[in-house]
Amino acid sequence: VTSSSPTKPLRADARRNIDAILEAATSCLARDPDASVNEIAKAAGVGRVTLYGHFENRAALVAAVVDRAVAESDAAMSDLDLAGDPVAALGRLVETSWTLTYRFGALVVAAEQAMPDAALMEAHAPLSKRVELLLERGRSEGRFRTDVPTSWLVTMAHAVVHTAANAVHAGELAADEAPHLIATTMLGIVTPPDDAVSAP
Amino acid sequence: VTSSSPTKPLRADARRNIDAILEAATSCLARDPDASVNEIAKAAGVGRVTLYGHFENRAALVAAVVDRAVAESDAAMSDLDLAGDPVAALGRLVETSWTLTYRFGALVVAAEQAMPDAALMEAHAPLSKRVELLLERGRSEGRFRTDVPTSWLVTMAHAVVHTAANAVHAGELAADEAPHLIATTMLGIVTPPDDAVSAP
Repeated sequence: VTSSSPTKPLRADARRNIDAILEAATSCLARDPDASVNEIAKAAGVGRVTLYGHFENRAALVAAVVDRAVAESDAAMSDLDLAGDPVAALGRLVETSWTLTYRFGALVVAAEQAMPDAALMEAHAPLSKRVELLLERGRSEGRFRTDVPTSWLVTMAHAVVHTAANAVHAGELAADEAPHLIATTMLGIVTPPDDAVSAP
Repeated sequence: VTSSSPTKPLRADARRNIDAILEAATSCLARDPDASVNEIAKAAGVGRVTLYGHFENRAALVAAVVDRAVAESDAAMSDLDLAGDPVAALGRLVETSWTLTYRFGALVVAAEQAMPDAALMEAHAPLSKRVELLLERGRSEGRFRTDVPTSWLVTMAHAVVHTAANAVHAGELAADEAPHLIATTMLGIVTPPDDAVSAP
């Protein structure tokens, strides 16, 4: 925004390279969580030196890919209707989270191997905010348990979706079973003590 | 067991080195999940060459430390009474899992960074078997939900304990809150649809 004219062409060029690298990295990591920087550079049609000029190392590249995936998911989620019964809304929210996560394939596996857990949670902040707001509403309406911190329930929402994604990639779970499992599990987690668990 | 006498002294020496390395690695990784192979070799009082003679790389060493931690935990769990009400028994089992996991400190963080999720689950097989048997009993007695696979509930038991351990190491959760959160969360997950969630 504050760039002076002489540097603009270079910046546009750099921006195109960065976009191509992130696009290629997203595709490569979706197929193979162990995709190397060399493979990604090749798929992006740039040299290794160019790639390392923009991303210090593989971990920094994976982190940037995750940020981009989260931003895309957040944009897709903005269309989601989270009004009405909090239980039904939570079902919709976690099923959509699953669909968006699954779209990025093995990137989840790559991210969990390249990034510390805390950094991964931090990258998910925009999505976590949506979950948090719905959980707070459900708590204030007496539908979700209030004897555990909201932050724990948000952490568990993330853990349930990512555990399912990992199980699918490990071949332990069929992808089409995941949405139901995620929704039932999350509803069990949020149900207040002595209340009946909702059948989804 | 099939070794011939001439190699025995060397083998005893190697065994002592391996034990010292695993002991040092367990302590180092409990404090710092990013502890290097050099630090671990130094703490074990062996040279780098000796360490690499026994463990091909850092990931192989972390995997061996995890196997050892799981074996120790499994031995400790053999004393646990899992008879009687399955709900109460599950509470005892997950609280003990937490205590054992927490004893190994930041090793959980190191393991999740160095090992793929599937390999980590595989390493936990002896502990998972105990959880599985109790879940199966609770299902046959109508206390735990049967509309999701037992394998998913086992995976979630592992995920809940490890999510709590990561949250404690990230400073997001107080260690003394973890046992209660883990037990309440797991009881919510296993409650059959339309049944009331047990207050722990």
